[in-house]
Amino acid sequence: MASNLDHVIVAIADPTRRAIIGRLARGPARISDVAAPFPMSLTGFCKHVRVLERAGLVRRTHQGRENTLELSAEPLRDVARWISTYERFWNTRLDRLEWFFAAKAKKEKSQ
Amino acid sequence: MASNLDHVIVAIADPTRRAIIGRLARGPARISDVAAPFPMSLTGFCKHVRVLERAGLVRRTHQGRENTLELSAEPLRDVARWISTYERFWNTRLDRLEWFFAAKAKKEKSQ
Repeated sequence: MASNLDHVIVAIADPTRRAIIGRLARGPARISDVAAPFPMSLTGFCKHVRVLERAGLVRRTHQGRENTLELSAEPLRDVARWISTYERFWNTRLDRLEWFFAAKAKKEKSQ
Repeated sequence: MASNLDHVIVAIADPTRRAIIGRLARGPARISDVAAPFPMSLTGFCKHVRVLERAGLVRRTHQGRENTLELSAEPLRDVARWISTYERFWNTRLDRLEWFFAAKAKKEKSQ
């Protein structure tokens, strides 16, 4: 069975869904307003919204005549936590580069 | 066209592929050794490896008679960078909780 971490990562794997998250980071909005800039049908757009809802990244509320979408970014924290386990791999690489340039600068200074 | 960020996120969306990354974080290993604990055929396992290679997360080298797999974690940094844009959302929520408990503690102290 797919875990919630799987659902969250699948949800953010698509550029349209990342763009929806980006739009909602500016504030809640009506579903048709969020959909407007995307070159797809409202049906296609709503499929993306459902994937985000399943992951807990978007909340849909009924306000007046139309649904409003709101960002719920907390599930991203679990992805960030998983990735942070591997941070040491790229940090080590950067540390080595930093060390290289520091050693180079020191050598040039002493010449 | 799918960007490399898309490929990387798709690659880590699967628990088997995250487990392969976890295994390779302990060091490079022969492909059959990495495959052994997974309850699937070597063909199925190799499909997962190819998805990781396409994302640039795993490097395959030919050593002796068998392929060796090595972790290349740097592409995860782009995912971490994308997620960090939204960190303020869960931090704000945590800050609010922290504030709530601090206020509660202060109130209890003064009673």
